[in-house]
Amino acid sequence: MTDTRAAGRPVTPLLAADIIIELDGRIVLIERRHPPYGWALPGGFVDVGERVEHAAVREAAEETGLAVRRLCLLGCYSDPARDARGHTASMVYVASAEGEPQARDDARAVALVDPLRIDRSLAFDHDRILQDYRVWRVTGRSPAWSPDV
Amino acid sequence: MTDTRAAGRPVTPLLAADIIIELDGRIVLIERRHPPYGWALPGGFVDVGERVEHAAVREAAEETGLAVRRLCLLGCYSDPARDARGHTASMVYVASAEGEPQARDDARAVALVDPLRIDRSLAFDHDRILQDYRVWRVTGRSPAWSPDV
Repeated sequence: MTDTRAAGRPVTPLLAADIIIELDGRIVLIERRHPPYGWALPGGFVDVGERVEHAAVREAAEETGLAVRRLCLLGCYSDPARDARGHTASMVYVASAEGEPQARDDARAVALVDPLRIDRSLAFDHDRILQDYRVWRVTGRSPAWSPDV
Repeated sequence: MTDTRAAGRPVTPLLAADIIIELDGRIVLIERRHPPYGWALPGGFVDVGERVEHAAVREAAEETGLAVRRLCLLGCYSDPARDARGHTASMVYVASAEGEPQARDDARAVALVDPLRIDRSLAFDHDRILQDYRVWRVTGRSPAWSPDV
C-alpha cells in the first residue's frame, strides 16, 4: 500500500453507496430533489466511521422508508466522469425489501419499475449500472474487467 | 443521493484498492516498507481522476512489477477499524498474472504463497479478505451481507 500519508493525508475520490432495492419483482427509483435532477437509484455519500453497507442501508431508509436486507455487492463504479460535481466512486448493492416505498429526505418521489423495461433515463451512470444488474441477475456474476480490453 | 455538497464538499472515508494476484496457483504477498509493517496484499490509495480498477493495476505494477489482467471484484472492505491510521475503504480485486514478481516501490520483499496455506499473518484485515477469497474461489460469489445478522 503506497504510504502517501507519510507526506500528509492522501486525497482520494469521494465514496458513495447506491442500492438496487428489489420489491415484488420490481426495483425502486427515486426522483432527486437536488441537482442533478431526474430519476436515479437511491444512495448517497458514505460517512467517515460508517461501513459502506451501512451507508447503503441508511440511504435506502432515509430516501424510501424501506428496511432493506440481504445485500450483495454488484460492482464498483468509479469513472471520473460519472458525476460532473467531482470524482465519486460508488459501491452498488442489490438488496431486498417489503412494504410500500415512500419519498423522503432527498427524494421528491419514488417509483417501482420493471428492471427489464426501464421507462425513463437515469442520472449519473445508473443506466449502465442497471445493464450490469440485468446480467448479474441471470449469471450471478459481475462482468470481469481487463486493462487490455 | 444525499447532496451534502450543497453545504460544501462532503468528507468520506479514503478509498484504496487491493489486489489478489494469482500466479501459477499461488498468490502474491508483499512485505511492507512503511508502517504498519508486515506482509499484506499489494495495493494502495486511489488517485482522484483514476478508476479504482486502474489503481489496482497500477499498484500491482508498482509493487510487484507484474502486469495483471482479468480483474474481478471480490468485495468492499470498509470497517472503520481496519486501518488504525484512519478510515479507509478498500475495493479488493482478484486478477491473473504471469512472470516473476519483483519487490519494488513500497514493497520490501515479495512472496508467492499457497492461498490454502498462508504461513504468516497479514496486516490490516487481509487475513479476512483471503478467507472470503477462498469461499469465492469455490462458489464464485462474495458472501451476502444483511444488517439483521
